[in-house]
Amino acid sequence: MKLVRFGDAGAEKPGLIDADGEIRDLSGVIADIAGEHLHPDALTALSRTDPQSLPLVSGKPRIGPCVAGTGKFICIGLNYADHAAESGMEVPSEPVIFMKASSAIAGPDDDVLIPRGSEKTDWEVELGVVIGKPAKYVAEADAMDHVAGYCVTHDVSERAFQAERQGQWTKGKSCDTFGPVGPWLVTRDEIADPQNLGMWLKVNGETMQDGSTRTMVYGVAHLVAYLSQFMSLLPGDIISTGTPPGVGMGMKPPRYLRDGDVVELGIEGLGSQRQTFHADG
Amino acid sequence: MKLVRFGDAGAEKPGLIDADGEIRDLSGVIADIAGEHLHPDALTALSRTDPQSLPLVSGKPRIGPCVAGTGKFICIGLNYADHAAESGMEVPSEPVIFMKASSAIAGPDDDVLIPRGSEKTDWEVELGVVIGKPAKYVAEADAMDHVAGYCVTHDVSERAFQAERQGQWTKGKSCDTFGPVGPWLVTRDEIADPQNLGMWLKVNGETMQDGSTRTMVYGVAHLVAYLSQFMSLLPGDIISTGTPPGVGMGMKPPRYLRDGDVVELGIEGLGSQRQTFHADG
Repeated sequence: MKLVRFGDAGAEKPGLIDADGEIRDLSGVIADIAGEHLHPDALTALSRTDPQSLPLVSGKPRIGPCVAGTGKFICIGLNYADHAAESGMEVPSEPVIFMKASSAIAGPDDDVLIPRGSEKTDWEVELGVVIGKPAKYVAEADAMDHVAGYCVTHDVSERAFQAERQGQWTKGKSCDTFGPVGPWLVTRDEIADPQNLGMWLKVNGETMQDGSTRTMVYGVAHLVAYLSQFMSLLPGDIISTGTPPGVGMGMKPPRYLRDGDVVELGIEGLGSQRQTFHADG
Repeated sequence: MKLVRFGDAGAEKPGLIDADGEIRDLSGVIADIAGEHLHPDALTALSRTDPQSLPLVSGKPRIGPCVAGTGKFICIGLNYADHAAESGMEVPSEPVIFMKASSAIAGPDDDVLIPRGSEKTDWEVELGVVIGKPAKYVAEADAMDHVAGYCVTHDVSERAFQAERQGQWTKGKSCDTFGPVGPWLVTRDEIADPQNLGMWLKVNGETMQDGSTRTMVYGVAHLVAYLSQFMSLLPGDIISTGTPPGVGMGMKPPRYLRDGDVVELGIEGLGSQRQTFHADG
């Protein structure tokens, strides 16, 4: 299934994408794409719903983040060997994790705000993993049982805030709108191999990132198991698994986003996002 | 007012502490100590409630975290000059921020779990600031208008996870139960000067930290204004403002918490916490 949330920000309804690519309204079936509805058993039950039996959503509503109730937005740093190299960093001996504020979450096509004082707002296409079942101290062999599905995430980053304003990357990762999520939560059963998905990102139509989850250093199952040794992963939590090469910071000279720039990004099977960047106030 | 949440974990009710130190049940007045109920105007209206008109809570219920719906648990690092020195770090030229997972939040007297594989679980008494009104790009002069009140927070920390397991402190700060919050949310009007509060922490009855918010490097108003330049602060968000000297890591030799240790901590006017530490599983 491809699950979606549509409508105005803060008032989204749950839906699913039918065989024709149209949105069907799920709000008569589940309250939201969140919490207990993300449990693998609940998703299996939901998959028995005939899309034709659901109301067709007309028009072109705004698409919201594809999951609600996200308590933790956990990001993995330097998880593609080539990206670590372009950042001038070594591949870490175990996953580097940091947090993005949950208040940064936005819809996949919402405008992104370049924060006041920013000179170095940058892009990062990433595979997002959405937790469906609580995970604590799980083994790698069991880890995928805890995954509801996958989505595109954009880990928008302000490099000066991240690295030049006193330690800890979260400062450059948590700005409002810096976390577009979606368009769809694609359930785990639809993705045969999450470690073999093409991914791309364009700025004003020019390809900047063209990679594959194949070159991820620490894969999805390892990350879920690893993180669960440090903290409980809960339904709705998102793990953003790192970005392949091609970010603005790695260019010579570096290139950053400016008011009016348009960024498009996508992952094979998971749909695409499109954001216009605007200077904030 | 001293606001409190009481009852089983996940099913707490709101209450307030009356003149005799007893809990009065607020659940007939507000749904929870969260969201819109934290707005300064809402707190002013709530303060007109006569505690004697509210049901007296009998017995000794569990006390939960004093605020619900916390989207962000933001911590400030190295914010006491003497603590920076004992950590072998310099006082930062601007605030160091990092995130604690919201899933780490616990009641003030709940058991704390020492995670599997931990050798260096440490204590940190901190002044917690609870946001009451959204704050974005606010000036320091206006910052306090966005504060609902204060509480004791315990920024429990695993030093090896924090510093020896590949960068980014969040890994050693986010373990389940590593964020006791409370017992009370003390509204801003009750604390004449948040920069002049005694604070203390004992391990098995022995005083380890004995400081004051007076020696904080970046004060509450500055922190609220500063953080709001990077991200919107929302009602229920908690800022844990750093710890004074006396943590286990700073001792010679270092001293860490073991199964069965009891930690008590408190801040002048904000009440105290008491946790028994247990090895997890």
